[in-house]
Amino acid sequence: MRDVYVIGAGQTPYGAFPERSYRDLFAEAYAEARDAVDRPVDPADVDEAVVGTLGVGGRQLGLPGPAVTEHVGLHGVPCSRIENACAAGGSAVRQGIQAIRSGHADVVLAGGFEAMTDASADATKYWLGVSGETEWERLTGTTFSGVYAQMASAYFDAYDASADDLAHVAVKNHTNGSKNPKAHLDFECSLEDARDAPEVAAPLNLYHCCPTSDGAAVAFLAAGDVVDEYTDERVRIAGAGAASDHVGLAQRDRYTAIDASETAAETAYDRADVGPDDLDVAEVHDCFAIAELLAYEDLGFCDRGEAATLLREGVTDPDGELPVNTSGGLKSKGHPIGATGVGQVVELFEQLTGRAGDRQLDDPRLGLAHNVGGSGGAAVVHVFEQEGVVR
Amino acid sequence: MRDVYVIGAGQTPYGAFPERSYRDLFAEAYAEARDAVDRPVDPADVDEAVVGTLGVGGRQLGLPGPAVTEHVGLHGVPCSRIENACAAGGSAVRQGIQAIRSGHADVVLAGGFEAMTDASADATKYWLGVSGETEWERLTGTTFSGVYAQMASAYFDAYDASADDLAHVAVKNHTNGSKNPKAHLDFECSLEDARDAPEVAAPLNLYHCCPTSDGAAVAFLAAGDVVDEYTDERVRIAGAGAASDHVGLAQRDRYTAIDASETAAETAYDRADVGPDDLDVAEVHDCFAIAELLAYEDLGFCDRGEAATLLREGVTDPDGELPVNTSGGLKSKGHPIGATGVGQVVELFEQLTGRAGDRQLDDPRLGLAHNVGGSGGAAVVHVFEQEGVVR
Repeated sequence: MRDVYVIGAGQTPYGAFPERSYRDLFAEAYAEARDAVDRPVDPADVDEAVVGTLGVGGRQLGLPGPAVTEHVGLHGVPCSRIENACAAGGSAVRQGIQAIRSGHADVVLAGGFEAMTDASADATKYWLGVSGETEWERLTGTTFSGVYAQMASAYFDAYDASADDLAHVAVKNHTNGSKNPKAHLDFECSLEDARDAPEVAAPLNLYHCCPTSDGAAVAFLAAGDVVDEYTDERVRIAGAGAASDHVGLAQRDRYTAIDASETAAETAYDRADVGPDDLDVAEVHDCFAIAELLAYEDLGFCDRGEAATLLREGVTDPDGELPVNTSGGLKSKGHPIGATGVGQVVELFEQLTGRAGDRQLDDPRLGLAHNVGGSGGAAVVHVFEQEGVVR
Repeated sequence: MRDVYVIGAGQTPYGAFPERSYRDLFAEAYAEARDAVDRPVDPADVDEAVVGTLGVGGRQLGLPGPAVTEHVGLHGVPCSRIENACAAGGSAVRQGIQAIRSGHADVVLAGGFEAMTDASADATKYWLGVSGETEWERLTGTTFSGVYAQMASAYFDAYDASADDLAHVAVKNHTNGSKNPKAHLDFECSLEDARDAPEVAAPLNLYHCCPTSDGAAVAFLAAGDVVDEYTDERVRIAGAGAASDHVGLAQRDRYTAIDASETAAETAYDRADVGPDDLDVAEVHDCFAIAELLAYEDLGFCDRGEAATLLREGVTDPDGELPVNTSGGLKSKGHPIGATGVGQVVELFEQLTGRAGDRQLDDPRLGLAHNVGGSGGAAVVHVFEQEGVVR
């Protein structure tokens, strides 16, 4: 099996850029990703492109993949759009790995984008609703935050955790995001701010929810047999895993875990031949603060019911044993849907190659990215390994 | 590189089934595909699923992949939705091949579906419009048939061909489709019918345009090292190719060819180590009759400008040297967008394994499937080879 490496990755700032087109955003991420590669990636070198987007707002619902690759000059490249709701970006990376391992490609662009803020508030609500299940959730009036609110309520019933822990997640991730020049909500917040914010869907308040963002992210992947042509910074994709689940929450056996995350992580750990204890850094899918707590357990960072304890003990703080969401996560960095999973790769690429600026951890060697679609209808997990980076 | 085989394939009838849900359609195709495999495919055997759909009508815009796989009992399977407008199905098959060759999967479900007829006429027009380019085509009022009408006009200007040849395509494909129990428009038509039909977008009339259909199709793919567990009918995927192009027609150098088809075919032929002269049967993307003529040239069946002659000489008739669209093609069989590319695989699987009923050709051994997204923003070509089928 061919090894696959991330040779460069970049992204736009995440934020509200209603005046910018999705193509423009993608082009900025593409340029930054190219610049991040040690030696030039010629457009003709790119054998395949995979683009993740939900297509919020209906700009280019058919063929958004070729629409962005043609715009950046990757004329003619085999290109597909992949969608798994909010896991579109992670799915694009995983498909890029398959393209390389299959022998169809040596160099792949895996990217994602979303332009969300120029849609009307009603349209945005509609488009976010499509991440839930249609018949049993959206059409019955359940909002997407409402779905996660049910998961939070179930979790609070089952375990020792409360809305204060959700506020704690927000404080941690905003602290991290305040050091990220690309973050959408790049300010710190106090526990009081995060505790006393307006209610969105009880028990979730505004600070327990990620923002609606515009943005794009791009990663270049390369096969092990060509990686040296492009870079000396070797970040290997050690393992990838994915799984699906019932799209609607009501069809699942439990609300206090995301089974697809658990399965995807088991596969990724198994392929990488590592376990959660080996990780030095992780980007997890905190679309709502409860999702970060669930992720700690689904990804094996702690036992069931122990997530709040892990958080309270500071294990997932930047100076803890396993820093989580050093980028600020979806909560502070933002969540341009299709970009998010690729943006996690950007953060890990930067952390593992010592380019994370004020957020830089002390020589992390093994990182994990965790991207969830909807409320867990899909999940993708990747494990990245630094291989002897010389700094 | 691992060999990949089609071990079974099936589809719903194509037609207008406004009372049936997309999940219901998918389940029928899934059951037929499973039945087409010699020995049972257990749901637990399916390692990966790829589902192509444009998502017409907005039923389940996020996570339609897991929404159909959960419905047929493939609980937990890694699943992505892939979209390349009308090439979504072909793209799903190609991604399935990559999943197997990458070592991520031994058995893959590659499927597609579209439920189009329960949307309002306005909504359907909107959704079909999304297959064109947004800024320069849809929002300026160009219909999707209008785009192909421009290609037909350019072709008629450049070469010896006229609307009569488009009518000829319709007659041939309706004759074929009349023998296909799954065809949407399963009736024969006369040259006069096809010539004198109401105008849609000059020079295209109603008989030069495929219908709007509901339907689903599923193919099971398996790695060469496990294929014998499932079947004795060996249909190998000998080659796959894909390419993209400018999504909008105005950005392209020529209107008289689809460059993406040409490139995808070259790649597929090259990987299969065959040429167009070796083919015994082909399913090509005739969303509009002009598209079938362009396909003859893009796929190398004849030289530029010679497509109408090829047609007139009967080369692509069922008793000709290279029968094209024995299924009836998109024109007669129908075009449920995400299903179409997978449905082509169903036809070729049936032809190459002697199951095509009244449409059966005399022992074809090499077949080609050609699936186009939009007006050529994407194209996918597969070559299938019968390996010593014992009948």
